[in-house]
Amino acid sequence: MKAEIVAVGSELLLGEIANTNAQYLSEWLATCGIDVHYHTVVGDNRERMVEVVTRAQERAELIVITGGLGPTEDDLTKEVVAELLGRTLHVDQPAYDRIEAFLKTRGRTMTENERKQALVIDQADVLTNQAGLAPGMSVQTPDHQYILLPGVPREMKRIIADHFDHLLGKETIKSRTLRFFGIGESALNDRLADLIRTARNPSVAPYAELAEVRLRLTAKALDEQVALDMLDALEQQVLAEVGSHFYGYGETSLPEVVLDRCREAGLTLSAAESLTGGAFASGLTDIQGASAVFRGSAVVYADAAKVNVLGVPQTLLDEQTAVSRDVAVAMAEGARKLYQTDLAIALTGEAGPTSNSGQAVGTVYCALAHSGGTEVLELTYPAFDRGMIRLRSVKDAYFMLLQNISPADEMNKK
Amino acid sequence: MKAEIVAVGSELLLGEIANTNAQYLSEWLATCGIDVHYHTVVGDNRERMVEVVTRAQERAELIVITGGLGPTEDDLTKEVVAELLGRTLHVDQPAYDRIEAFLKTRGRTMTENERKQALVIDQADVLTNQAGLAPGMSVQTPDHQYILLPGVPREMKRIIADHFDHLLGKETIKSRTLRFFGIGESALNDRLADLIRTARNPSVAPYAELAEVRLRLTAKALDEQVALDMLDALEQQVLAEVGSHFYGYGETSLPEVVLDRCREAGLTLSAAESLTGGAFASGLTDIQGASAVFRGSAVVYADAAKVNVLGVPQTLLDEQTAVSRDVAVAMAEGARKLYQTDLAIALTGEAGPTSNSGQAVGTVYCALAHSGGTEVLELTYPAFDRGMIRLRSVKDAYFMLLQNISPADEMNKK
Repeated sequence: MKAEIVAVGSELLLGEIANTNAQYLSEWLATCGIDVHYHTVVGDNRERMVEVVTRAQERAELIVITGGLGPTEDDLTKEVVAELLGRTLHVDQPAYDRIEAFLKTRGRTMTENERKQALVIDQADVLTNQAGLAPGMSVQTPDHQYILLPGVPREMKRIIADHFDHLLGKETIKSRTLRFFGIGESALNDRLADLIRTARNPSVAPYAELAEVRLRLTAKALDEQVALDMLDALEQQVLAEVGSHFYGYGETSLPEVVLDRCREAGLTLSAAESLTGGAFASGLTDIQGASAVFRGSAVVYADAAKVNVLGVPQTLLDEQTAVSRDVAVAMAEGARKLYQTDLAIALTGEAGPTSNSGQAVGTVYCALAHSGGTEVLELTYPAFDRGMIRLRSVKDAYFMLLQNISPADEMNKK
Repeated sequence: MKAEIVAVGSELLLGEIANTNAQYLSEWLATCGIDVHYHTVVGDNRERMVEVVTRAQERAELIVITGGLGPTEDDLTKEVVAELLGRTLHVDQPAYDRIEAFLKTRGRTMTENERKQALVIDQADVLTNQAGLAPGMSVQTPDHQYILLPGVPREMKRIIADHFDHLLGKETIKSRTLRFFGIGESALNDRLADLIRTARNPSVAPYAELAEVRLRLTAKALDEQVALDMLDALEQQVLAEVGSHFYGYGETSLPEVVLDRCREAGLTLSAAESLTGGAFASGLTDIQGASAVFRGSAVVYADAAKVNVLGVPQTLLDEQTAVSRDVAVAMAEGARKLYQTDLAIALTGEAGPTSNSGQAVGTVYCALAHSGGTEVLELTYPAFDRGMIRLRSVKDAYFMLLQNISPADEMNKK
């Protein structure tokens, strides 16, 4: 099946926002084995919208349209599609009730424009919008399927998530995302080359993210349980090959998994940061509930601060420089003592662009202090720029923690 | 003039990347007074590319095409446009020399594919690419202008920047970006309503960014100096109205300006962070050369850490809770002493979603300790989510610093 994604909205043509919806939908459709041949963006203009949808009818079977479902007079998507299909619009009672209930909480009654959001195309499958007021819809004709979605990314994604497994036909489609760290996309592709190339249903597709790789597994079957069993079997094959780099499912992140594991194991955590300058701590405290595990971080950018705040011996700094194994150890042990935690991470290194310590740019030491001693990882990122060296170092520290905490870890308890 | 932006690349249709080039180009063209009517994305497929460019010829006068200029066999943009215009390709000697020189530094000779990057369309204006090997080009026909640009965003932006002022005709176009903080887009729109609505040349356009607003001023004139004078005059009008929120020009950022101002004034800086958990420090240390000014930050997420690391009195925490004016002051003064700096910022508050201190979610105290004493700002962000409260707080702290440092500040020196 060939697909075209049409985004409606003058804000896109003015460059106020990027068309990230098209990216999200493209990945979803690729997952489902559907080829996207075109993306088109058009403004809130009836004549040009008619032209674009007519053109899409000529070159695609599935037409996904985002935007233009809102309450203003500029919102024309339903009207244009209905007109092209020779259908009319009617009020969808559940959508109407949702709008009314929402306005009631605001102490208001419905305006004519707000009512417009409850209108749907005749014979459409209405796709309830749990994240907003305007529902999506799926319209089937002999030659085409049209999927109309709101332009607000949060609402668009929520509708896809809620209706994912039956939106594209009678088969159930189930998908699962596995997250990996410490292996590049090309290395992972090599290790899984046969699976990625040959597996069609279930299928597996890699996506590179900042210093990480996601694998999306997808299975289609008439029965939901069959699809889930297919995913389980494929996941086992994948993990047998690259399981040592796997760290979590779906929308999770390394710091989130670190906090979960520490919480489960009853461990507290602190840090001492030189080259990462607070980014390790900031990544953890971005996550709600971090305070149950994370006590704090001594950001010691200047050498004097390493001495005064963490008690790193001045002689050690003089002899070894701040970018050294021994200073990393002293920082981690200093933080563990200062914050009185079970675990402490220290990060020191040369982020560049020039070296102050005499060590090569991209040299990083990551130390982990725990009740049984202190371990150090020496990392080298010779070809990376400053921002990437810092980002990688933070993620390496999270991953080092994960590899050292068992799910129910008692070893590291004080 | 009507424009269409065409992006070529199967990676866009697979959802691997978003079409951020179209956003960037749309903003640039809006700046130049050109209406963008469509964006189109098409894969690396000759037949579909011909279809898309032919369609663009029917509905636009300016056609900007990104991508497909690289060395692989999939890169077809030049070939397709040349074919449609009945022109041939020839080797551009300067581009050829650049590729050869680059390969020489790698100790390699040119392959046939690499040579392909030096091919340009006959009679095109070649747009030198200072950030890569494939040049862009501008082709004029009686009915259309075609601008071909590389798909790599860094290269695309560099070519626009280098050729900006003459790419769209004989007039010189000059543009200047002013950055504002502490004023919302709608408030700024209100204050500048007349200017934004009536000014056409020079023009002024607002763009909202994370908790900030950019204003883009643009002037067209046959003479460069005239255009620059027009920008100066418009800037004065803008700053007369909203100058108290202005903090910098162009691609700068709040932490960058903070570091510059501190460096000029010879001031050192440290921080104590509770609710922002290292994000204040991380924003500063993202910037190369931060170590000349910034000594470090005590991330004290747990109350015990506030006591142990910064010497905040336990009684104060018991009586006032961690989210209080007095604790913010004690944290700032503790950091200033611990890191031995001229200035110290402290941030404490309730990021939510629930309150631990009894203070309302969104309550933030930002303290600035300097040689003359300690000042506190009380901020409230009632309707913001956790991430936005943290982001805003960090930026408020940077802005508080800027408002307290004069360009050549001696007052705060110890």
